[in-house]
Amino acid sequence: MALSPLQKARYEYSPKLPGMLRNGIADICVKEGAPTQSVADQDRIKALFPNTYGKKEVTFEKGKNTAAPKKQVVGVILSGGQAPGGHNVICGLYDAVKATDKDNVLLGFKGGPSGLIEDDYIEFDDAFIDAYRNTGGFDIIGSGRTKLETEEQFEIVTKVAEKHGLTAIVIIGGDDSNTNAAVLAEYMAAHNTGVQVIGCPKTIDGDLKNEDIEISFGFDTATKTYSELIGNIERDANSAKKYWHFVKVMGRSASHVALECALETQPNICLIGEEVAAKKMSLSQIADQIADSVAKRAANGDNFGVAIIPEGIVEFVPEFSMLIGEINELLAGENTAKFNALSTWEDKYAFIKAGLTDEAMSVFEVLPQGIQQQLFLERDPHGNVQVSLIESEKLFSAMVKEKLAKMKEAGTYKGKFSAQHHFFGYEGRCAFPSNFDADYCYSLGYNAFMLIQYGYTGYLSKVSNLSKPAEEWIAGGMPISKMFNMERRNGKDKPVIRKALVELDGKPFKYFEERRAAWAVETAYTYPGAIQYYGPSEVCDITTKTLALEKG
Amino acid sequence: MALSPLQKARYEYSPKLPGMLRNGIADICVKEGAPTQSVADQDRIKALFPNTYGKKEVTFEKGKNTAAPKKQVVGVILSGGQAPGGHNVICGLYDAVKATDKDNVLLGFKGGPSGLIEDDYIEFDDAFIDAYRNTGGFDIIGSGRTKLETEEQFEIVTKVAEKHGLTAIVIIGGDDSNTNAAVLAEYMAAHNTGVQVIGCPKTIDGDLKNEDIEISFGFDTATKTYSELIGNIERDANSAKKYWHFVKVMGRSASHVALECALETQPNICLIGEEVAAKKMSLSQIADQIADSVAKRAANGDNFGVAIIPEGIVEFVPEFSMLIGEINELLAGENTAKFNALSTWEDKYAFIKAGLTDEAMSVFEVLPQGIQQQLFLERDPHGNVQVSLIESEKLFSAMVKEKLAKMKEAGTYKGKFSAQHHFFGYEGRCAFPSNFDADYCYSLGYNAFMLIQYGYTGYLSKVSNLSKPAEEWIAGGMPISKMFNMERRNGKDKPVIRKALVELDGKPFKYFEERRAAWAVETAYTYPGAIQYYGPSEVCDITTKTLALEKG
Repeated sequence: MALSPLQKARYEYSPKLPGMLRNGIADICVKEGAPTQSVADQDRIKALFPNTYGKKEVTFEKGKNTAAPKKQVVGVILSGGQAPGGHNVICGLYDAVKATDKDNVLLGFKGGPSGLIEDDYIEFDDAFIDAYRNTGGFDIIGSGRTKLETEEQFEIVTKVAEKHGLTAIVIIGGDDSNTNAAVLAEYMAAHNTGVQVIGCPKTIDGDLKNEDIEISFGFDTATKTYSELIGNIERDANSAKKYWHFVKVMGRSASHVALECALETQPNICLIGEEVAAKKMSLSQIADQIADSVAKRAANGDNFGVAIIPEGIVEFVPEFSMLIGEINELLAGENTAKFNALSTWEDKYAFIKAGLTDEAMSVFEVLPQGIQQQLFLERDPHGNVQVSLIESEKLFSAMVKEKLAKMKEAGTYKGKFSAQHHFFGYEGRCAFPSNFDADYCYSLGYNAFMLIQYGYTGYLSKVSNLSKPAEEWIAGGMPISKMFNMERRNGKDKPVIRKALVELDGKPFKYFEERRAAWAVETAYTYPGAIQYYGPSEVCDITTKTLALEKG
Repeated sequence: MALSPLQKARYEYSPKLPGMLRNGIADICVKEGAPTQSVADQDRIKALFPNTYGKKEVTFEKGKNTAAPKKQVVGVILSGGQAPGGHNVICGLYDAVKATDKDNVLLGFKGGPSGLIEDDYIEFDDAFIDAYRNTGGFDIIGSGRTKLETEEQFEIVTKVAEKHGLTAIVIIGGDDSNTNAAVLAEYMAAHNTGVQVIGCPKTIDGDLKNEDIEISFGFDTATKTYSELIGNIERDANSAKKYWHFVKVMGRSASHVALECALETQPNICLIGEEVAAKKMSLSQIADQIADSVAKRAANGDNFGVAIIPEGIVEFVPEFSMLIGEINELLAGENTAKFNALSTWEDKYAFIKAGLTDEAMSVFEVLPQGIQQQLFLERDPHGNVQVSLIESEKLFSAMVKEKLAKMKEAGTYKGKFSAQHHFFGYEGRCAFPSNFDADYCYSLGYNAFMLIQYGYTGYLSKVSNLSKPAEEWIAGGMPISKMFNMERRNGKDKPVIRKALVELDGKPFKYFEERRAAWAVETAYTYPGAIQYYGPSEVCDITTKTLALEKG
């Protein structure tokens, strides 16, 4: 395999641990804090987690290691979408496992949670691990989206654990995976298997964030990668002075990624789904907001601009959700076949018009034809519209174009409008982790083993104080159940970690809100450039503006 | 304006000059070589350039500066599409202008060649220049696509030059702009204006390359940016193991950008337009080649991959060019209105079918409906199909999907195929220039002024030996007319610089050709990562693999 010069150089990078973990395994002692309780629904959650609920928060300190020595055989899985730094979690875990006792074993189960079910694994050794240090991707053992949540699955996992003599399982994943880690931990404890379960907080989307998780890993690198590209496009827009660029960014429902990119690049427009929902904005109102910026800039002679669109935006538009709901109902059952049998778009359109309420139809009519057709092109396995496939960047640019044409007729706009469209997502999920993510992830993995060594289960590997230099980071653990509340999922009440949405009274949004009227008219672009792994510390070691504002 | 940490840090970077230019202006002497002649059509070109043809090639050396002192007032323009490093050409030029005499003046004409016609300019000073050192973009004075080529334009330029007392004009642009620079130089010489004209070779497309131009500036940074993204996507593909990514890259007709990215990232497929043309490949044959890779990888359990598609590919497919030609003819004149008046796609399809030859129709029928419609959506001002708007990445993935469906029926393919599409272009044109481009561009600008000082006109600022460290680079000049041949353009014979296409017997293509059969089946991806401006020299100072292979 041919390695790039950067990959070779990154092998030599030594990730920074929190100061308290730097003295060697023999000099890490544990300090327990107060017992915890879940953020809501305490009684119900306590009842569901009799063996793992209410445990104490934990911090590590410099001091004599008092953990009882035993041979450790640890299994690890990667779960869900890629996030930069996943490899380093495993490297940190491996180094702690081996530093404690070279006879300890780390097994990697392949292809996500299904690897644990199918007993598909490898045993790590130095040579193997060294090839993945400080690299992006999840290709070290692959990932998958199987959910570990049923009793039958847990029984199989227990057998696999017994076969290998597993003492612990580390699950690297998002909110659902960590929820399931807590459920598995409870199962393992209730059945006296002796298998501990530890979670690590992963997602580029930034929606796994709460009192105990300052930032999920990967968010820093992914948003830096998207910001690099958005900044480059801004500079291009400001040089060519002839295009409006509509840039959709990944991030699922929440708009954390879009907001962070906006803080880094200061575009003319950034939509925030949570605000759209709170203000119950219509598609037309959103397009008005963009068209207003286009017209004001055109009046200054600036017929160019950049707008950031979060992937999840349309879900937050109440009228659009209503439309999608009606379409899903309209095409349920045998209607799908009937609809598909219609040969022309005119016939299909008539079918749609006859089936939707006037209210839904009035929304449907506003959409450009290309988007109307996208709603019927591909359905998910349940026959539902795939909202994530809707090219919302094209939707809004088409609506803005129509509005500008009307404004031109009315004499309120005299400019030129030409749009380019971009979608950034896959480009950022497997980048070489930034120094921050490389350090944070390595620390999460190393720290996860300290929790294992001291016998904790159902805990999240917690590293905090992250807006400070790594020396001052705080390593410890928190019961995952502490983050739980009960939510309705698929018709059942379930204990889950609440997804973090952008808080409209939080500092990052407030900062943006105070400045965006100026950014909409002025050319206030900031050009972050490519992620730097070397060079001045202020260039290569600083994490997100979101975290700086939240903790600053 | 808020500056990013990287932008602030890049202000401190000192671009490296060729060794021979490092001793201060007073210690640069000139060495003239042999007289030159154009690469073809010598007599005709000599007749067109009586005052500037056949001049000697020039090299600078360390030695006493013998240029006659005079006050210099230099104008500079940026022409055409953005390329990283344009700002540094101007910074290098400015530094040489001012280092020679602080009373010398550098004027920047705004918005491209039209700035010179409209006398829209600024005078540079230290503070202004310092804000653009080592940054991307052309926003320092903007760019434009007006062509300077008519006598009337030259007369106006002469008046503008007289008004400012211009002694020289530096034109930073691609092949056409440099061609026009030579024509302007001849005009200025023939009319005894005393105004010299110097060109600098710019384009990310890499198609301005010949015996005297080893690489055009911007190509290094742009291809590194695209390669970063392609590498990240490869790593994502290899982690998720469920998508084939079709990545279109900018680069106009030639496939230099695609080829360089392929050399950097080792994808499963990279199409090369020049090969498609040479082998007279059909769309179906190209799709077969990709489908073959998909099927072979699927047989190994790898239902994922990455294919690079050069922007200009479809122009090189003979049957596709024929189809486009027929469509342009079919919809010429009043037929456009007739066609547009048809309300359904079915009616339009019937119109097309009636108007095309059977041969063209057989190509049209192969296209997915979405692409068929793209051919009629937007036409250029002459009513022609806009080939560059055709989403060829979607064209080929749709054709591959159809082929795989047939192979599945025939039992020759048992896999899953799911595609993602990307287009990278604007992301790379305004990135912070790599160290190579920062150094090369600064040298081009600095060197351009040495040519001015020594009285040359119609010359290209030439810096060569670029695969070596900057210390060993060779600075000099070459008459632009040396690169000319006669070509038919818009019905007239014109002297032009021949556009460089990928040479199928050149080392870069040969290197690729020898390895691609293995890459098509194996997962041989290389992950270049983000451009680094700091760190180990092998990470941050190396230019393209194309240049290394050509000069190595």
